Amino acid sequence: MAVIVQKYGGTSVGDIERIKNVAKRVIETKNQGNQVVVVVSAMSGETNRLIGMANQVSQTPSGREMDLLLSTGEQVTISLLGLAIQEMGAQSCSFLGSQIKMLTDRVHTKARIRSIDATVIQKSLDIGQVVIIAGFQGVTDEGQITTLGRGGSDTSAVAIAAAIKADLCEIYTDVDGVYTADPHVCDNARKLSQISHEEMLELASLGSKVLQIRSVELAANHNVNLVVRSSFNSNEGTLLSEEEPDMEKIVVSGVALDLSEAKVAIREVPDEPGICMQVFGAIAKANINVDMIIQNTGADGKADLSFTVPMTDLPKSKEIIEALKKKFDFTKTETDTDIAKVSIVGVGMRSHAGVAAKAFSILAENNINIDMISTSEIKISIIVAKSDGKKAMQLLHDGFELYDET
Amino acid sequence: MAVIVQKYGGTSVGDIERIKNVAKRVIETKNQGNQVVVVVSAMSGETNRLIGMANQVSQTPSGREMDLLLSTGEQVTISLLGLAIQEMGAQSCSFLGSQIKMLTDRVHTKARIRSIDATVIQKSLDIGQVVIIAGFQGVTDEGQITTLGRGGSDTSAVAIAAAIKADLCEIYTDVDGVYTADPHVCDNARKLSQISHEEMLELASLGSKVLQIRSVELAANHNVNLVVRSSFNSNEGTLLSEEEPDMEKIVVSGVALDLSEAKVAIREVPDEPGICMQVFGAIAKANINVDMIIQNTGADGKADLSFTVPMTDLPKSKEIIEALKKKFDFTKTETDTDIAKVSIVGVGMRSHAGVAAKAFSILAENNINIDMISTSEIKISIIVAKSDGKKAMQLLHDGFELYDET
Repeated sequence: MAVIVQKYGGTSVGDIERIKNVAKRVIETKNQGNQVVVVVSAMSGETNRLIGMANQVSQTPSGREMDLLLSTGEQVTISLLGLAIQEMGAQSCSFLGSQIKMLTDRVHTKARIRSIDATVIQKSLDIGQVVIIAGFQGVTDEGQITTLGRGGSDTSAVAIAAAIKADLCEIYTDVDGVYTADPHVCDNARKLSQISHEEMLELASLGSKVLQIRSVELAANHNVNLVVRSSFNSNEGTLLSEEEPDMEKIVVSGVALDLSEAKVAIREVPDEPGICMQVFGAIAKANINVDMIIQNTGADGKADLSFTVPMTDLPKSKEIIEALKKKFDFTKTETDTDIAKVSIVGVGMRSHAGVAAKAFSILAENNINIDMISTSEIKISIIVAKSDGKKAMQLLHDGFELYDET
Repeated sequence: MAVIVQKYGGTSVGDIERIKNVAKRVIETKNQGNQVVVVVSAMSGETNRLIGMANQVSQTPSGREMDLLLSTGEQVTISLLGLAIQEMGAQSCSFLGSQIKMLTDRVHTKARIRSIDATVIQKSLDIGQVVIIAGFQGVTDEGQITTLGRGGSDTSAVAIAAAIKADLCEIYTDVDGVYTADPHVCDNARKLSQISHEEMLELASLGSKVLQIRSVELAANHNVNLVVRSSFNSNEGTLLSEEEPDMEKIVVSGVALDLSEAKVAIREVPDEPGICMQVFGAIAKANINVDMIIQNTGADGKADLSFTVPMTDLPKSKEIIEALKKKFDFTKTETDTDIAKVSIVGVGMRSHAGVAAKAFSILAENNINIDMISTSEIKISIIVAKSDGKKAMQLLHDGFELYDET
């Protein structure tokens, strides 16, 4: 008998019929001899409806009251799913975050989980009930309701799977799994049957919307086996797990395209210690996430410093740089929003030399100019002109033979 | 400085504009130098929306899951009202039933309150916050969410007022207060400035929808001063309080009309001990509330037994009586749905003789036939033909000079 955590997102429980379908799927899993814990999101549209009402009464809503408000979304879903499962003849028990002591810190609207009391869940499973838990929500040690921020229900599901030592955590969503590239962009993208936590982390940070990075990190830290699959069909999904030896033979697992970044460049930075620290210190203080950083020092001792930030943070970044310009006598600063970031991800890169060289040559052969390069152990990111983005992604996808061969 | 509990029902918080109006009124009350606790219901329509969804997934919804579902309604209101009050510059803190330890028994969907932890509320009041509390909901000692059933938010408000020893508990609704008769039926009905708990209990049990009987009982038991008033204007409402000496001079406070009952009559009941017990025992076992009971024994030692039940319980009552008919050899049973109950209520009746006689003569002079009579210390109820109901009520209202003299 396996212990399985299933998480259903907003579209999977988007209306009454879909909630009934989820109930059927849950009961099927239970009838196959498993213990099942179900974690659900708010019905799609519900969270936006609640936020809409809040915006009508307040321009600067307090986090505490927002969390009280938003947490009702999941509370409605667990109640309805519980009723649906019971109506189909199975036993179930629905729990709020507070009722399984999903303790979090006190940072409202983006709280982080500290601990979960597995005994309540275990007791309920032991008497044959399907356990239904409201995702996205927790409670402080003072009894205040908190929410976990974007992708919070995924995080709830993985944390619960870790707490009860589940054999499997299935994330049901509206896509079939993780692909070698965004299937909306690459026609011949292939669904991966397996991917390592590490690769998924890189893909998530590259803007793949399949899983939030927090839940992947949590799964990696607690060795939770995650499966991403669709709630609308029975296709096998993609298994995220610890890296297995036979995964090594796959050099590159996927490519990703990100059009949401902008570049900031500072030319002829005086070669003085501490300038980098001051630049990125000021940027970090403004809560802006810097992605790629490139520094190149010329023969004259002066350096070119370039970095990328989310497009939405560009105005703020510009302001900060302008302020520093006077202080450090930067002669020239530039910004560029006309860029695309193409990335290649794969744990096999570690042991296979020449992946970067191959990527560069593929782009060069096709006259695509490379603006910036940044590499990690299992990822290569390349900045090209925005107009070349899709083409570069498709070329790399095919060049590394990621396409569907069927 | 007074401590005031204000309760706003569903129509008073029915949309965003109305919630903002409630916020204004609350802040005004606070700015007059009071400590304010606000108890709110779900936005009007919300509870029905939730029940509608539940009915779509389940024919026999479990109480536990229903309570989880329904309690979200008040949770949304406290969040939005909290945001509105804060947006207007006042400080507030919103609490769920569970967060003020509104402990109830375990009877889901109609739980009864056991205790409230006043310290949480007091602490928040002491630092200058408006305290906002979700009505209608509580929690068991095991942490399960419960709801209090119909009129639950009134009950919450009164229980909280009792727990924090509030000077006043204002029930805001869509009527101006308690009237000498239903103003939709009697054009010249007068709003009472004051009424005793006892009289209100009788009026509530007679079908006046202004306050649920539970909240009046609770107010009477804990000497809570209740005011019923409208949230849509500034008119003074009706104060319910302990009976004061000067109230004695008012003989009759109000009249009420109830068209929702039906009569069951058993003719020539054998005069044997225990028959009454068996009849009403069987009726009670079926959870049917009997209202008036009249028994009259004739010279032949045979009795006529008549009683009234809610119209909706008549079919079940008939079944029960048919079953007993064989056992006890009742020769004749009858039912009558063509009845109206007219009642006169007033604490002054206790010390003023002749109220009943006056009522009977008013009806007799106007050729209204009396079918049944039942009296208590402060109430006289009279059953007449349904077609005479409104006329009887108006005659009694005017006969006892309850009309508005302005």
